[in-house]
Amino acid sequence: MTRDDARALDAADPLRRYRDLFDLPEGVIYLDGNSLGPLPRASTAAVADMVARQWGDGLIRSWNDADWIDAPARIGGKIAPLIGAEPDEVIVADSTSANLFKAIVAALRFNPTRKTVLSETGNFPTDLHVAEGAVECVPGARLAAVPRGRIEEAIGPDTALVLLTHVHYKTAERFDMARLTTRAHDAGALVLWDLSHSAGAVTIDLNHAGADLAVGCGYKYLNGGPGAPAFLYVAKRLQDRLTNPLSGWMGHAAPFDFEDGYRPATGMKRWLAGTPPMLGMAALEAGVDLLADVDMAAVEAKSRALFDLFAAEGDALGLDCVSPRDPARRGSHISFRHPHAYELCQALIACGVIGDFRAPDVLRLGLTPLYLGFEDCWRAARILEDVLTTEAWRDPAFAERNAVT
Amino acid sequence: MTRDDARALDAADPLRRYRDLFDLPEGVIYLDGNSLGPLPRASTAAVADMVARQWGDGLIRSWNDADWIDAPARIGGKIAPLIGAEPDEVIVADSTSANLFKAIVAALRFNPTRKTVLSETGNFPTDLHVAEGAVECVPGARLAAVPRGRIEEAIGPDTALVLLTHVHYKTAERFDMARLTTRAHDAGALVLWDLSHSAGAVTIDLNHAGADLAVGCGYKYLNGGPGAPAFLYVAKRLQDRLTNPLSGWMGHAAPFDFEDGYRPATGMKRWLAGTPPMLGMAALEAGVDLLADVDMAAVEAKSRALFDLFAAEGDALGLDCVSPRDPARRGSHISFRHPHAYELCQALIACGVIGDFRAPDVLRLGLTPLYLGFEDCWRAARILEDVLTTEAWRDPAFAERNAVT
Repeated sequence: MTRDDARALDAADPLRRYRDLFDLPEGVIYLDGNSLGPLPRASTAAVADMVARQWGDGLIRSWNDADWIDAPARIGGKIAPLIGAEPDEVIVADSTSANLFKAIVAALRFNPTRKTVLSETGNFPTDLHVAEGAVECVPGARLAAVPRGRIEEAIGPDTALVLLTHVHYKTAERFDMARLTTRAHDAGALVLWDLSHSAGAVTIDLNHAGADLAVGCGYKYLNGGPGAPAFLYVAKRLQDRLTNPLSGWMGHAAPFDFEDGYRPATGMKRWLAGTPPMLGMAALEAGVDLLADVDMAAVEAKSRALFDLFAAEGDALGLDCVSPRDPARRGSHISFRHPHAYELCQALIACGVIGDFRAPDVLRLGLTPLYLGFEDCWRAARILEDVLTTEAWRDPAFAERNAVT
Repeated sequence: MTRDDARALDAADPLRRYRDLFDLPEGVIYLDGNSLGPLPRASTAAVADMVARQWGDGLIRSWNDADWIDAPARIGGKIAPLIGAEPDEVIVADSTSANLFKAIVAALRFNPTRKTVLSETGNFPTDLHVAEGAVECVPGARLAAVPRGRIEEAIGPDTALVLLTHVHYKTAERFDMARLTTRAHDAGALVLWDLSHSAGAVTIDLNHAGADLAVGCGYKYLNGGPGAPAFLYVAKRLQDRLTNPLSGWMGHAAPFDFEDGYRPATGMKRWLAGTPPMLGMAALEAGVDLLADVDMAAVEAKSRALFDLFAAEGDALGLDCVSPRDPARRGSHISFRHPHAYELCQALIACGVIGDFRAPDVLRLGLTPLYLGFEDCWRAARILEDVLTTEAWRDPAFAERNAVT
């Protein structure tokens, strides 16, 4: 592909107008939106309004007047169409880790004769770490992690919950959500999907798949800002049958009656624990609002094209691509294994191409169609080529010389 | 007290200069800083910098370049002197509810032959609600709540943890922290103090009291913004002996090694779970920074004087003050019981005097010396007098007629 080819693709890109909705710094080609999404222009005003008008002027009155109290359900309702859920099946609360904990403990208690949480070795660490902690909260429960290829056969009569990340953070491998969910249900297990690397990036249909539980991250493809609140999905049929072990006052049926005893709210509100983090909520809502009219099929189509561009460049450079070539089995990033992935990543960052390194040997590049053009990717590929062919990454002074100004 | 008396007190107030550090709206006398602290002027710039420079320009690089990764420990270290702790005994994370959960489960596991979490009936709901959920995570554990006057006698050989709120959210009653801590330790129990209504309001010395665990809220007297992250204290002697049941990746010894197995970090970092909420962190840090050079003894002295002013006014109006008259047994708010407390509160708010109602019959007024003057309180008392003597609160149209413009 030539630069002109790339420019022609940009000119014909139906998503082109979204780029102007982001406030991207000069001199940067951002290939890490799967780790931290960039700043939507509208978020600046949304956060400033939250601070000056809602907090500063409204003070405590804003819990009602600015509808802070309903923000977790309102924003959850806006995330719902991005993940194939009904608006009242999603709530925004806490972190992905905390939501994993709630959902795992709840699932184990729902399925009390079964004791195993089954997951994948090499899953994103917090999924496994939190599961380790969660099984300690349910007598007899245990975590079993097996390699990806052995998950289906490992689902058995003792499996209470299958805990899987839809798109793998390192390789971008995507599970067949409907197939795995059916397989788990056939064996009498529930399924909890971590959508952190897929919500806002690929089409997701939790309800069509029959999924039971899902969690996901607000600060990646939802562009909700660093450490944005996370979301939790519970299928409607399970909402009154599962309870939240993190039984804080905001999940109470009547938080402002100040009762001693905990009575869980109906619906998704029972999954709240503490007071909602309103600054983070404001930024997340702006990020999610930006996605409201986005055609996710167009996003997926462009992600595929960007992947193909990078994959071809990687092939030409002899790089070892560890992401699946089949787009149906992939999320929206591309990863290359390289013995000097860390140094390579640092050298690219010095040239303004921001990807990231994932231990021990992966260079990961996020492909985010809303603000990344074909010419951007072409330029990033040229810089990657330059860094590789000159072995610039071997030179400790390189990063300094090429620092983005 | 006359208005001139109040003005004279303001003129002589050593804390007067702090008022200008807050962005308070016109037409409001804010007596609810114990529920949501107002906006510090510096917070506007701090949050704007977080959004535009750190998130927008810095993008993922800010985890290192803007030291996001150390924000939980850094801000915790700044809270430490306000609560009588060492800087490495406090970390900022999650919500008060989530931190209560972590600390309660950890304490029960530390004291495995003892099964009772002892608390107070009428404690702040989330303390009791979360304790209900936490005891379900430890086989055989149970929650026992007894009235305030019977707590000391109830501490016994089965008590694993005494869970108390230092200053009561409704009445402002303050426990003798050192006495209760010693009493619990003598019986072999740990103590967990909820400092939500005392941190930043009264002098606290956790280390002098020998306290084991504490949690507290960022959005009240620390002025950290709506839903600010909360803090957790673990005494140094216990830090390597307690573990966090919410074992998320940020509490791992090496989060970016992406190991499958959870290895808790040493020190306070093991109490982290998910990714820190950076927008909330920025506002909280600005709020805490404002308190760095504040003389807490002067704050307490002025709080006492503001209390005496309101108590005298309440006595003159025949109101039933439910807060202790002895300042050593009190926090920094004053509460009156009234059969029409809700309507009274609404009528006051309509006149720009923002206090709050706590079910079923309490009018609560926060006394926050950094931004509340004697003349403010004198004026608020006149409005209270007017609303009471005219029985304006009986008139549903009153609130509308007197709406603050």
